[in-house]
Amino acid sequence: MKAEKVVIVGGGFGGLTVARMLNGSDYHVLLIDRFNHHQFQPLLYQVALAGLEPSSVSFPLRALFQGSKNVRVRMAEVLEIRPLQRQIVTTDGIFDYDYLVLATGATTNFFGHQRLQQNAWSLKSTKDAISLRQHLLLMLEEADGAPESELPGLLTIVVAGGGPTGVELAGALAELRKHVLWRDYPELQASSMRIILVEAGDRLLAAMRDTSSEAARSYLTQMGVEVLTQTRVMDYDGRFVELSNGNRIASRTLIWTAGIVASVPEGIGSAVKVPGNRICVDRYCRMIGEEHIFVIGDLAYLEAPDYPKGHPQMAPVAIAQARLVASNLLRHQKGKSPKPFVYKNKGVMATIGKHKAVVDLPWFSLRGGLAWFIWMAVHLISLMGMKNRLFVFINWVIAYFTNDSTLRLIFEPMSRNGNTAKNKK
Amino acid sequence: MKAEKVVIVGGGFGGLTVARMLNGSDYHVLLIDRFNHHQFQPLLYQVALAGLEPSSVSFPLRALFQGSKNVRVRMAEVLEIRPLQRQIVTTDGIFDYDYLVLATGATTNFFGHQRLQQNAWSLKSTKDAISLRQHLLLMLEEADGAPESELPGLLTIVVAGGGPTGVELAGALAELRKHVLWRDYPELQASSMRIILVEAGDRLLAAMRDTSSEAARSYLTQMGVEVLTQTRVMDYDGRFVELSNGNRIASRTLIWTAGIVASVPEGIGSAVKVPGNRICVDRYCRMIGEEHIFVIGDLAYLEAPDYPKGHPQMAPVAIAQARLVASNLLRHQKGKSPKPFVYKNKGVMATIGKHKAVVDLPWFSLRGGLAWFIWMAVHLISLMGMKNRLFVFINWVIAYFTNDSTLRLIFEPMSRNGNTAKNKK
Repeated sequence: MKAEKVVIVGGGFGGLTVARMLNGSDYHVLLIDRFNHHQFQPLLYQVALAGLEPSSVSFPLRALFQGSKNVRVRMAEVLEIRPLQRQIVTTDGIFDYDYLVLATGATTNFFGHQRLQQNAWSLKSTKDAISLRQHLLLMLEEADGAPESELPGLLTIVVAGGGPTGVELAGALAELRKHVLWRDYPELQASSMRIILVEAGDRLLAAMRDTSSEAARSYLTQMGVEVLTQTRVMDYDGRFVELSNGNRIASRTLIWTAGIVASVPEGIGSAVKVPGNRICVDRYCRMIGEEHIFVIGDLAYLEAPDYPKGHPQMAPVAIAQARLVASNLLRHQKGKSPKPFVYKNKGVMATIGKHKAVVDLPWFSLRGGLAWFIWMAVHLISLMGMKNRLFVFINWVIAYFTNDSTLRLIFEPMSRNGNTAKNKK
Repeated sequence: MKAEKVVIVGGGFGGLTVARMLNGSDYHVLLIDRFNHHQFQPLLYQVALAGLEPSSVSFPLRALFQGSKNVRVRMAEVLEIRPLQRQIVTTDGIFDYDYLVLATGATTNFFGHQRLQQNAWSLKSTKDAISLRQHLLLMLEEADGAPESELPGLLTIVVAGGGPTGVELAGALAELRKHVLWRDYPELQASSMRIILVEAGDRLLAAMRDTSSEAARSYLTQMGVEVLTQTRVMDYDGRFVELSNGNRIASRTLIWTAGIVASVPEGIGSAVKVPGNRICVDRYCRMIGEEHIFVIGDLAYLEAPDYPKGHPQMAPVAIAQARLVASNLLRHQKGKSPKPFVYKNKGVMATIGKHKAVVDLPWFSLRGGLAWFIWMAVHLISLMGMKNRLFVFINWVIAYFTNDSTLRLIFEPMSRNGNTAKNKK
């Protein structure tokens, strides 16, 4: 019997889990990603703030499948899906599939606002994190010795979006201001740096319990972050942020974490899409009307009694769906019928600063130091590769005792026009 | 008495040594570099081959002088020196000096060959190493699944220059081919990858003894590197390397380590320059005719009985000159007369591969495993920062046992035109 071909698009939490579970099976598996590595997105904000190295939160896909008899990796972008022919078209050629697993995740949603997209920074890939790190460091370099009038713009950072990424970023920025600014830039006043977190809804961390939202807000306020809820960013030209409350804030740095939109490849009919570009799937994570296409993770839309608006777009859901799809594929080879997807919520968490985190478990909530240690342990365990875990652990231990890192590196040289910053994109 | 101002240009081995020795003295010290970090150039080739992280061979200058009362750091490019006004003009403003220390080092010399410069890769900065790493990995990604006819170009790497950088790079490439290629790209044949080292002179490692040169050549040949001496690269269009022996080699990767030229800032008269753009200095490392300008390292040209063609352009000389200049500046403040520069050769070394290195000490030479361990120990000790030493050490230990790394990361996504490679520059 000829081995059936499974093509997986996307090497994030979902796609990678499927590939690993099918490793050693009788399927021919092809894993395709635009990058050549898995990206551990939950820690990208620490890369952006020079607390961790890009390589510590990235793991090369080929290294994971060295010696595998049935899993191959290709670095390519998918151009089109052809469900009728069971083919996908990529920058590296056309591949046939028997089963296709779409796990392309989501990207930053600027809601069609072009100028915002051009001028704001996002934080969805390692590359984003590296670029943002360089930009933040350059703003400090520019501020050192700059005329007084330019300081507000250079030293004000606006974070849009009060979800986990926005909250964690704002908190980490506050710690950077507190511990690093005066050491590295003795001529700058920490007080001249402003960090503003803007959230459209009426509370931060909307996916968490009210008490956790409140705790996060109170931590941030203690740390000197200006938290604005029920406020939207209306426009940004790279110099001034326009808020829905009428304020206009001089800032050279707007970081946009206020929305995501699923990355749907070409060739998927609009009939199966819901707002946010997610693809409707059945309880087996199959695209509606397509038995040979599975969709998992941020890209998939599946309602359930506990989740009337679809499952949340986060790593644990993607991993759970990946496990279901892989095990159903394995069951299929044994002639067994598939099982439906049921999500067991394992909890949600966010960290704000040292000894300051919030954790919602199914039955109770935690905050403070213990929550912080739990947050770190969970993230450390979830990282790919022992060396990455070791390096992140060492960096965290050093940071714990010194409140400092030695990763504030700008790899672009200062050039004659007085600024290394290439155009943002 | 008003503190005298010392401006140091360049945060390499020389400039950094001067700044550290003057830290805590009565001088006002300003350290200026185009980058915000010290770069440990001897290990850049390992960064390029994904054996080490960029951050492990880089150390932020500001972190080194945190809390210093008299040393300040600026990231800026020097535009012009005005010796008469004792001023330097930079992208970050004009600064006065009482003493100027020029330690701007050297950059790759393409001998005016524009097309070569456009298409060849150099390896003088962390940024160069990052770009080259990405390019090398992309060539392998492209080769995977490429038609047979394109493989020679994609998988042939030409290294021009048989000095330490060229030799170490060629050796490390051979190890990559031996240990990594078949693991990561099971469809590619290791034998289809060619590594060609081209040297214009009649032997490799011209700065070392004949026996060491011979040993290096024999190691490389054992490892399958094609070594061509008395051969020059005449031209390169990005596709074919033209050699002086008439051969035309299909290769998408030419790495140029065949010459350096000193980086002289504007404002230095041509009368004090020798070929290679180096600046003539007296025995106190003062620029000829300028008592207030010191020149050290790769930029300085000083003949001596043992060095009739000037001192070699390498780190130990730069550090020795920096120590002399700093101690003479400190003596000056105590009213003591300066001491002249005398260089004591401490030895020269190069590594070719695992258990394969050559070391020339003043009285004898070593090669093989012991030489290799000495090479590693010396480089480990010379690195800046305990954490960097630890991380390099861990990476080396892992590589020793696994012959592998998990740093083969391409941070640019594959894009629709089928290649992430931005234009080379």
